[in-house]
Amino acid sequence: MRQDVALHHASRLVNHGPTVLVTTENDGRRNIMAAAWSMPVEFTPPRIAVVVDKKTFTSELLQASGRFALCLPVPALADLTYRVGSESGRDLQGSDKFVRHGIGTFAGPVLGLPWVEGCCAWLELRHIPEAHTEQAYDTVFGEVVSAQADDRVFANGRWSFRADNAAWHTLHHLGAGAFAVPSRVVQGTLLRP
Amino acid sequence: MRQDVALHHASRLVNHGPTVLVTTENDGRRNIMAAAWSMPVEFTPPRIAVVVDKKTFTSELLQASGRFALCLPVPALADLTYRVGSESGRDLQGSDKFVRHGIGTFAGPVLGLPWVEGCCAWLELRHIPEAHTEQAYDTVFGEVVSAQADDRVFANGRWSFRADNAAWHTLHHLGAGAFAVPSRVVQGTLLRP
Repeated sequence: MRQDVALHHASRLVNHGPTVLVTTENDGRRNIMAAAWSMPVEFTPPRIAVVVDKKTFTSELLQASGRFALCLPVPALADLTYRVGSESGRDLQGSDKFVRHGIGTFAGPVLGLPWVEGCCAWLELRHIPEAHTEQAYDTVFGEVVSAQADDRVFANGRWSFRADNAAWHTLHHLGAGAFAVPSRVVQGTLLRP
Repeated sequence: MRQDVALHHASRLVNHGPTVLVTTENDGRRNIMAAAWSMPVEFTPPRIAVVVDKKTFTSELLQASGRFALCLPVPALADLTYRVGSESGRDLQGSDKFVRHGIGTFAGPVLGLPWVEGCCAWLELRHIPEAHTEQAYDTVFGEVVSAQADDRVFANGRWSFRADNAAWHTLHHLGAGAFAVPSRVVQGTLLRP
């Protein structure tokens, strides 16, 4: 079930490079897109960078509202993730991609942003405006203000990817809709030189 | 065996969020560190952002030389990756982390940077100075000028993670030396709404 993730552990959610669903809402208009390109940039305060093309509807809503959410999809959402990363929500008159694809959502606890049902982790972020970086690299910074995760796969600040929770593993986009799933784990040890 | 990767495919090498080894060289001094936080920001020209703490020896060599390399470690290098991410090379008088840990290298083809033997992919980048982003977020941008990959696992611009090439899969840091390995692949399809 969903549990709160301490903010100082929020960066861990995207530490291993998962593809994310970026959701936005402004003045009653919502959108969702997939983004393969994101990374933490700081543990405390928890800050994340994500590449959002400045021409997208997501960028428009993000800039207008000053906030965005990230949801981490699981293998059952691979088709949906590929789909929402391949089309724009700008021209869906009177509707949006959530309605079009029957995507269930619930409200994030701090900013009220649409979090996608069936994901394994969720974050809400306040936008940190950086005009140059956004213009030159489409790179958007945000500070995490709330985070939750499914405790079947993330607990006590750690991912635990096992065979018995494979349905809640993260997706990592390889290109053209193929996603790698990090189902095997190796433990490194600090060998003495 | 190692094969050239076309520059317009170089971003694909880090699209799925692997942990990388960052290598640097300036005026005869070399260093290597691990970085979990990197992402592509552009396909063409191929540009990548990576978080390098400004206090590190890697940052010092990178800033002085205007270049850096990324090497993608495989499961057999998990211990080494954890190790070089947990110590500084600044104070190894007359030596460096390569010597200390017996890390074999060969020269990158364009910039001559040390590429680590036994990895599955390698990139050389020219630093794109962005003083504010480096200061505020430790986020460093670079443009890829050469890339190669082991064709047992990456060919024709695509990763192919299979059971028979598991020894060349990438590592994705979960924290505290635990690395997820993306050994399972799911293929999304563009379902019609």
